[in-house]
Amino acid sequence: MTKPLYGAVEAGGTKFVCAAGYAPMEVPEEARAVIATQAPEPTLEGVVGFFEGITRKYGALAGIGIAAFGPVDIDTQSRTWGRILATPKRGWSSVSLVTPLERFGCPIAIDTDVSAAALAEARLGAGAGLGSLAYVTVGTGIGGGVVVADRTLKGLLHPEMGHIRVQRDPRDGGFAGVCPFHGDCLEGLASGPAVMARWHTRVEDLPEPHPAREILGGYLGQLAATLALMVSCERIVFGGGVVTGGRLLPDIRRSASQWLGGYLPIEARAGGFDRYIVPPGLGDLAGVTGALLLAMQAARTGR
Amino acid sequence: MTKPLYGAVEAGGTKFVCAAGYAPMEVPEEARAVIATQAPEPTLEGVVGFFEGITRKYGALAGIGIAAFGPVDIDTQSRTWGRILATPKRGWSSVSLVTPLERFGCPIAIDTDVSAAALAEARLGAGAGLGSLAYVTVGTGIGGGVVVADRTLKGLLHPEMGHIRVQRDPRDGGFAGVCPFHGDCLEGLASGPAVMARWHTRVEDLPEPHPAREILGGYLGQLAATLALMVSCERIVFGGGVVTGGRLLPDIRRSASQWLGGYLPIEARAGGFDRYIVPPGLGDLAGVTGALLLAMQAARTGR
Repeated sequence: MTKPLYGAVEAGGTKFVCAAGYAPMEVPEEARAVIATQAPEPTLEGVVGFFEGITRKYGALAGIGIAAFGPVDIDTQSRTWGRILATPKRGWSSVSLVTPLERFGCPIAIDTDVSAAALAEARLGAGAGLGSLAYVTVGTGIGGGVVVADRTLKGLLHPEMGHIRVQRDPRDGGFAGVCPFHGDCLEGLASGPAVMARWHTRVEDLPEPHPAREILGGYLGQLAATLALMVSCERIVFGGGVVTGGRLLPDIRRSASQWLGGYLPIEARAGGFDRYIVPPGLGDLAGVTGALLLAMQAARTGR
Repeated sequence: MTKPLYGAVEAGGTKFVCAAGYAPMEVPEEARAVIATQAPEPTLEGVVGFFEGITRKYGALAGIGIAAFGPVDIDTQSRTWGRILATPKRGWSSVSLVTPLERFGCPIAIDTDVSAAALAEARLGAGAGLGSLAYVTVGTGIGGGVVVADRTLKGLLHPEMGHIRVQRDPRDGGFAGVCPFHGDCLEGLASGPAVMARWHTRVEDLPEPHPAREILGGYLGQLAATLALMVSCERIVFGGGVVTGGRLLPDIRRSASQWLGGYLPIEARAGGFDRYIVPPGLGDLAGVTGALLLAMQAARTGR
């Protein structure tokens, strides 16, 4: 009996990361590829081409997992399951990520990139051993996923926590925000494009000290506090270029602590804010690792 | 073989509702009691006395479920499982709700009153047939619970969503809020005591029209929008004296719709805001019904 081989796709707004492996941490170097996100057709042709090469070399896939940018239909009961929903990303609205991969004849699972990353962090990364974890990434957009008892949280759709409202920092009062839907929701205020619109530079190139770090950390800390209050997760992972590049974790922790005002037992139960709000344990690999876990799940459940 | 009999306690800040029954909707009239919440000792003696009468008449209990006001330790791994945590309710901090009931020699389960109510609404009430539901009650305090795939959401603690921050209504700018921890968090602005502090009357006695309804509905609608974005629940139940007495549902729906700005597929997936944000299906019985479901769960799992 051959060892089952799994396929993983992290479908992002700027790149698609493809991989194949026998286990989450067992991906041969040559079984990875990065495809720049272009129009849907050439991008998905690239993905199919990658897996055709893989199956020629290693044999059939036992399952494929897709970790997709949102909004995406992840409701397996829905007629539009596997399709990208209305998105400002040109050409991608209602494109199916699943259909082109059906030719490989194996079960396919799809979830959001951030939920998949949350799953990987919960099982193998910063949340190993805990019962629940939230994962937030701050880059071109702000997204988050939640894992409770080894399942990603979903329902009407999937979490879209980047779009919650936050209380404005008085130093930031003049900025209207960049979210096309909401203006000054969290994503409109604290994403990479919001940094660029306001300070005309990337966060990592801001001089030190600069009030931007306190302002951004303040907004993101409100999300952390809201997660703790709404979802009661045991740990929160903050990743993405804006958090990492801006070295925002200390400001996020300070803000979350301030907003919670001692109300939750973060010290007693989580060992303090330094252990409650943490960087990713799997670095940039969380998304594709999560996709591989989804593939294994698909193979197990047959869908 | 006799039919198993279950005990239920809804432990509230003003009253403890006790019941015993063979199934959630099968509680004999004489197997109910309401005990006013006094100091812990006489209150819990009243609860024990009720169940002593029940067991004398009907025989042993197969399980007891407790739906408790929070914050309460619901972590079965914790040394302080079953105890009320630090609370402004005089005398109740660190009181165990479980210990006095151990004399009945049956498995005991405890969750928050709002999580238990969410469980009851999800299985038997407004959420029957759905995969996820949030339940919010607005009275002396504001609390909420979430059920996903038939389990109540918990982790570090339990949801404490009454304490999220909201954007202030400009007409309400002068009010500092009544939350002893946060001042103007949601509970500090939209609970019964906040209504009383601001308008010196109960919400049901406000003249019609009065801006209070728009202000309160506006704040509670922000919670609804935040729930939809963070938890992606398929329906949200709003109950409690302030919502019912103030007839706030239309204002809550309007506000949630406005805050979401068309971002989530509420129309397509939930049939619109009138079907997404709804009154309780079980009325005032959700809490004690949830406690009975917890008792059945305890009997099944032996803890």
